[in-house]
Amino acid sequence: MYYCSSMPENQSEDTPAADRDHLPVPPMSLARWGTEDEARELSEDIRVLLRDVLEVTVDSTTPFDPAAVTASPSRLGAEDLSALAAVVGEGNVSTDDAQRLPRARGKSTPDLLAWRTRPQVDCPDAVVAPRNDDEVAGLLDWCGREGVALVPFGGGTSVVGGLAPDAGGHRAVLSIDLVHFDALESVDAVSGEAVLGAGLTGPRAEELLAEQGFSLGHFPQSFPYASIGGYAMTRSSGQSSAGYGRFDEMVRGLTVVTPVGVIESSRAPASAAGPDLRQWLMGSEGAFGVCTRVRVRVHPVPETVRHEAFRFPDFATGAAALRTVEQQGTGPTVIRLSDETETMVNLAAATEEIGSGESEGSGGCLCIALFEGTDDHTESRQAETRAVLLAHGGTSLGAGPAESWEHGRFGAPVLRDSLLDNGALVETLETATDWSNLSALKEAVTGALTSSLEASGTSALVMCHISHVYPTGASLYFTVVAGQRGDDPVAQWLEAKRAASEAIVAAGGTITHHHAVGADHRPYLESEIGEVGARMLRAVKSAVDPHGVCNPGTLIP
Amino acid sequence: MYYCSSMPENQSEDTPAADRDHLPVPPMSLARWGTEDEARELSEDIRVLLRDVLEVTVDSTTPFDPAAVTASPSRLGAEDLSALAAVVGEGNVSTDDAQRLPRARGKSTPDLLAWRTRPQVDCPDAVVAPRNDDEVAGLLDWCGREGVALVPFGGGTSVVGGLAPDAGGHRAVLSIDLVHFDALESVDAVSGEAVLGAGLTGPRAEELLAEQGFSLGHFPQSFPYASIGGYAMTRSSGQSSAGYGRFDEMVRGLTVVTPVGVIESSRAPASAAGPDLRQWLMGSEGAFGVCTRVRVRVHPVPETVRHEAFRFPDFATGAAALRTVEQQGTGPTVIRLSDETETMVNLAAATEEIGSGESEGSGGCLCIALFEGTDDHTESRQAETRAVLLAHGGTSLGAGPAESWEHGRFGAPVLRDSLLDNGALVETLETATDWSNLSALKEAVTGALTSSLEASGTSALVMCHISHVYPTGASLYFTVVAGQRGDDPVAQWLEAKRAASEAIVAAGGTITHHHAVGADHRPYLESEIGEVGARMLRAVKSAVDPHGVCNPGTLIP
Repeated sequence: MYYCSSMPENQSEDTPAADRDHLPVPPMSLARWGTEDEARELSEDIRVLLRDVLEVTVDSTTPFDPAAVTASPSRLGAEDLSALAAVVGEGNVSTDDAQRLPRARGKSTPDLLAWRTRPQVDCPDAVVAPRNDDEVAGLLDWCGREGVALVPFGGGTSVVGGLAPDAGGHRAVLSIDLVHFDALESVDAVSGEAVLGAGLTGPRAEELLAEQGFSLGHFPQSFPYASIGGYAMTRSSGQSSAGYGRFDEMVRGLTVVTPVGVIESSRAPASAAGPDLRQWLMGSEGAFGVCTRVRVRVHPVPETVRHEAFRFPDFATGAAALRTVEQQGTGPTVIRLSDETETMVNLAAATEEIGSGESEGSGGCLCIALFEGTDDHTESRQAETRAVLLAHGGTSLGAGPAESWEHGRFGAPVLRDSLLDNGALVETLETATDWSNLSALKEAVTGALTSSLEASGTSALVMCHISHVYPTGASLYFTVVAGQRGDDPVAQWLEAKRAASEAIVAAGGTITHHHAVGADHRPYLESEIGEVGARMLRAVKSAVDPHGVCNPGTLIP
Repeated sequence: MYYCSSMPENQSEDTPAADRDHLPVPPMSLARWGTEDEARELSEDIRVLLRDVLEVTVDSTTPFDPAAVTASPSRLGAEDLSALAAVVGEGNVSTDDAQRLPRARGKSTPDLLAWRTRPQVDCPDAVVAPRNDDEVAGLLDWCGREGVALVPFGGGTSVVGGLAPDAGGHRAVLSIDLVHFDALESVDAVSGEAVLGAGLTGPRAEELLAEQGFSLGHFPQSFPYASIGGYAMTRSSGQSSAGYGRFDEMVRGLTVVTPVGVIESSRAPASAAGPDLRQWLMGSEGAFGVCTRVRVRVHPVPETVRHEAFRFPDFATGAAALRTVEQQGTGPTVIRLSDETETMVNLAAATEEIGSGESEGSGGCLCIALFEGTDDHTESRQAETRAVLLAHGGTSLGAGPAESWEHGRFGAPVLRDSLLDNGALVETLETATDWSNLSALKEAVTGALTSSLEASGTSALVMCHISHVYPTGASLYFTVVAGQRGDDPVAQWLEAKRAASEAIVAAGGTITHHHAVGADHRPYLESEIGEVGARMLRAVKSAVDPHGVCNPGTLIP
């Protein structure tokens, strides 16, 4: 299958359906994205680039020392653990450090750096893995009665502090792992719908759907590990969003177990029956309850995939071309545009699996387009899209660079680990705004990141691409590479992130296009939704989670 | 402009911007859809059909007698009226019966029949027309302090009791007319967005946008009278939804003045910043506050419109063809399918402006398709759509029947009045479900309507069409014609409506696809959204409307 290029080996077998009496350890390494097997050495070219441009070497960073890691002791007693075992079965409760540590932190750069610089780890007090909705309800009930908070755990891929084991003033906090919700529960081939367990990973969901001729078509960069429930609860957006929509556009219904009861929100394909509850459950990040299954739109595995890359002389010209493609509805499945810096760096790093692997010439901005569907459909969409892009200043580079991009598209997070190992400070952040405001927002964020990092004593390379287009605007995805400076690179980054976040708010962008709110963006949410919006959120929170036990560290302003 | 075929004369001039010191009378007749000018005589063919098939004649109905109409006295005193005048200006407050009566009822068949059979009318106690957000806030503040409810009034086109002047236990109720919010406030040509006043009618909004080369592309049957704010607050869906989306998909932001403050919900084109507040404001039907402006996606006035009609041998074959068109994304702007009965009746009624006006042959099911955009774009979309429809059992009828449909598409409500005048009981209702459940739902609703009406002593003609398609399902729009029986045709219809609503709930449809909840569907909402969903709605209602003054008769279960 074409999405397997970066799929880790251990993803092809999830928990067998019959084996629900124990708790597997999450597959990713503690201090890295992905598994140890996926780790890659940096090429000499990149090392030279780091050293010469950013003045960083491996000596600039503290290496990760597994022996130094200690987990906070569990605050739960034997009675608590018996009570939990009575709900989910003895094999599905654990206070082992080996279980608690991988669920203590997500995969943001501050999370990854913290394993190096802050080895004393605040952990959830226990990990529990319920096997069905009743057990989730039983856990919520116990948490409410006992004053214990809970954080849902899907793939553990949060890059915004969504897993922070914040007890919110309660006496302890549980990590509720959805691993046992791993079934393709049903497929409605006529309507093009499937019901998927919230704990299914992206690759496993695609594998199960492919057996029936279908695909979800949701390929975020977190795809190899992230879960279906996580996609829904964080409003994930995949690389094929131009064709198949964001995850929140694919969702037809979802089940959320709240402390006051189960919501089976399965609205008709469209409805005027009042406010759309699904749109409040999606993006709720566990603050209203635990998502256990999602009903999504699926489509037949495409007959044909066509690839074409283009070069534009500059970002503004390319952005105007992408805008026209989207506003005219010419129909690409994937369309993205790297700015000049990202195009240059990807070219230099072509051997590092984030670039094209082929020469796309030098200079300008690289645009990648994919077209999926029937043969006729993709042919006309490609022709119409190409005509618009060429008329707006693009030059076709043929299929090669687009095929290379597709091959390497889940590789960037692994490269981040290699860069962190070598003393670089590297992180991504994302926003979105109207087309008319896109350049101003890009400039504001780039400026804020550059100034902040320069003030910390390092040059910074700020790259950007448009990865998701809409009729009225687009997302901007920034990748920053700088040098780790001083003995607290976490603080160094948080200061740059604060500057970027304030720039986003001031320039009219959204604080997050698809990474979600978590603990990290929470301080900025009220400025985006307003005082009355925050009041509405708090009202729903109180109504469904009266004891405030559901993921208290996230979302709610 | 092509949407003008049924545009009433008096819509081309709205309140001039400078003239905001008085309150115009809404344009529609009290007891009919549209103006007196629009009224049409039934043809002899239709009269014969009514008499021979449904055994109804003009004697079966009570005629409307304007002289018999009396308005409930206003419960507001001089002090109240002075206070209101201090907020909105003296010319914008009225307790005249001529102002209160047209805002007392909407345009459902029970509403229209009630003018004949229930001439003593419960009216709002005063009509007020605020001129800006501050005045709306002032009114809400006064209502909260004084214990007076309010019902927002846009175009007055509700067919679900959304205008019912229900004081909800308060001492009086105001009708707040948005007529002064009639500006195209701004256009962002690059992003394809416009900010429209909530009180703009469909035709006036299109006229203002057309001056700048843009169109909203939202054409519900209520288009000649309905308002932009109404579209948003009721989740309206227009006939071009396949191309431009439902109104709730066009909305980028909206301003709602609530009793606790103004919400300026202007999310980025896409965002993961938590739940989507706009999706709770849309469909809130005034229960959370008053919508005063909407920011919407607009598109260039299309270069080309192509028309084509098709015939299918039966509804199931046609529905499968439409499903394939939508799931493959072949790209029509309008696509709809009438069932056998509707196709037959429209053919018979061709001279009555609801039919095609051209011979489309006899039998089978008529499908209408329109394609809008550039010349190349529409050519490829039409070719791909036609190929799918022909491959799935369709026969092309050429452009004629599709052009006729477009010409007469806003005429059906006027025909309803003529039928009511002639003793027929005629009403529409709508729902939506998955493709796999469509036939079962259609059969259940048809059966419920037929049984109920037969039990009241009349035959019934139940027609149905698919007017809105989605990848996973479609809407069903039913038109029922029967004979008025007994001296209370309102009760006769309400019984049939109850049977249809219960059938919809039991068969898994939504209680409303685009007519909204209002008072009429309120008893069914909780069965659709569940107990926890209802709790969430009530929590938001309490948070933003602590005195419960906002449209207390609608929505909230």
